[in-house]
Amino acid sequence: MSLFDEFSFIHKIKPTKILHSELITPIGDDASVYKVLDGARQVVCVDTMVEGVHFLKEFSTPEEIGYKGLAVNISDLAAMASIPKYYLISIAIPPHWKEEEIIGIYQGMAKLAKTYMMDLIGGDTVSTGDKLVITVTVIGEIEKDHIGLRSNAMPGDVVFVTGTLGDSAAGLDLLLKKVSVRDPNISHFLINRHKYPSPRVKEGRYLSKMERVALNDISDGLASELHEIAEASQVSIKIEFRDIPKSKEILTLREDLIEKWVLFGGEDFELVGTASVDSWSFIKKIAKENDFQISKIGIVEKGPAEVWLQRDKVEQKLKKSGYNHFKQDR
Amino acid sequence: MSLFDEFSFIHKIKPTKILHSELITPIGDDASVYKVLDGARQVVCVDTMVEGVHFLKEFSTPEEIGYKGLAVNISDLAAMASIPKYYLISIAIPPHWKEEEIIGIYQGMAKLAKTYMMDLIGGDTVSTGDKLVITVTVIGEIEKDHIGLRSNAMPGDVVFVTGTLGDSAAGLDLLLKKVSVRDPNISHFLINRHKYPSPRVKEGRYLSKMERVALNDISDGLASELHEIAEASQVSIKIEFRDIPKSKEILTLREDLIEKWVLFGGEDFELVGTASVDSWSFIKKIAKENDFQISKIGIVEKGPAEVWLQRDKVEQKLKKSGYNHFKQDR
Repeated sequence: MSLFDEFSFIHKIKPTKILHSELITPIGDDASVYKVLDGARQVVCVDTMVEGVHFLKEFSTPEEIGYKGLAVNISDLAAMASIPKYYLISIAIPPHWKEEEIIGIYQGMAKLAKTYMMDLIGGDTVSTGDKLVITVTVIGEIEKDHIGLRSNAMPGDVVFVTGTLGDSAAGLDLLLKKVSVRDPNISHFLINRHKYPSPRVKEGRYLSKMERVALNDISDGLASELHEIAEASQVSIKIEFRDIPKSKEILTLREDLIEKWVLFGGEDFELVGTASVDSWSFIKKIAKENDFQISKIGIVEKGPAEVWLQRDKVEQKLKKSGYNHFKQDR
Repeated sequence: MSLFDEFSFIHKIKPTKILHSELITPIGDDASVYKVLDGARQVVCVDTMVEGVHFLKEFSTPEEIGYKGLAVNISDLAAMASIPKYYLISIAIPPHWKEEEIIGIYQGMAKLAKTYMMDLIGGDTVSTGDKLVITVTVIGEIEKDHIGLRSNAMPGDVVFVTGTLGDSAAGLDLLLKKVSVRDPNISHFLINRHKYPSPRVKEGRYLSKMERVALNDISDGLASELHEIAEASQVSIKIEFRDIPKSKEILTLREDLIEKWVLFGGEDFELVGTASVDSWSFIKKIAKENDFQISKIGIVEKGPAEVWLQRDKVEQKLKKSGYNHFKQDR
């Protein structure tokens, strides 16, 4: 029950090339069928983005919405240390969206999918009321016993994050004009970090080579993700604010905002995790050799599932909650 | 970004038992991970149902909406002759839906999932504008080379359907009060066929034992599904109206409506397909032994991708189009 001519629409969004030879059926049958390497585990997750909640038409082009919609899901696969392989898009389209805009969303996903070697293998297109709803299902693969589960943290572990934190939330506040910055390069960098997050698949893959690693991707903010690891592993986590990596761009902005963005901002889609002290020097070495940033920000301790923040020699218990984007609009 | 308290909500919908021991992670990490039998193929598809388009709150309880939302997807797995294994639910919830109604939807799915031995392995819950949007992803497994592809039909094949056709569309017209019937048992039977379709998984599995079988599930109406097989296989299909199986209940209704329901009605979620003449007597035998209904309704011929209907010795070319439910509301 598509808004558009279904045949012509599918023709426009159908991939012209298959990247994985394990894919047996192209799009167009009742379901897609693919082979799995013997012994490999399947990793699957789904995320839904809603207009007005997760994105706003006035701030993002269709391509940007598509890019981010898929990026968010690839990030979940990265947080399991898996290899992204396939994706499916289901989209509920309100009357005020034009066909070329919808195709733009698919193109934004296709661009990112090419980078991460993913095949579009299915989906659905239906009409709806007032809000565009995009649901992306992603499928990855992982070797036996190398899964970055949240429950893998143990007392004594190093707590680490990839990249820099807070940039995406700062970029969003710039978009929403809650904050301003004179230097257009800084603004451009931070907004780009919000619109084009880089799922840390490579980092996850290298980390999966460790004997044991706990991983989470930072979608809801560092504090929230650390709480999830603490709860899943039943450990206490202590981090040091000074050690959290921040971009030189974010450091030009107001200090009180930086703290909020870095701890609760979310949507950085960096990885946060824990690994044994013994493996930490090796992790630093492979990060250097393979050109990715990873920083120790704290330690795992025995104790109740809590997260503690040390700043200027003062310790405070960190709450889980970040803030909800666009909450004022709803 | 859930409408409800996320922790409490997930607790309420989280399965208490895992049916497949191949499932490695329970719900709650970034993604779900499961093992695959060596050599088995994965079968995956996704479908979205929108309030006002695919269901109406005044005609269906939350449990019925959930049941059907999953049934429709299981039917796609049946149409590939695969074994259903896992499902994920993503749901975008408008403010006018209450938490207990949403839980009812999950319960409706859980009930059916139990019947078909499927584990709920993930999902997402977000808020939206005016229409409830439910996206279900299902994953099945199939042995090598036993896939019921639409492109498998060959000239000379028998065309068959499972069950009886048109009941669901008749049930919908009864619900919409477009038609009425005096006998409450007839009304009950037909409405039930609309609300509680039975995905033909068992039938698909038996049919997969044939050397070659083309399969499609009847979601958009017999005419439309036959066209899909004809186009995918580049063959001509000829069916005989008299041979299409009809329930005794539908036969009590108006003859002109019966034709419309049977040919274009859709949502029967029976299987339609083709198999070689040589295998047909064996198919009839296993159907009898295993207590399912399967009927020959026509033959496959060489020629252009067309569908022909014979009725009272008159042949007419059958158009693809059925009708869109609730179209008048939009």
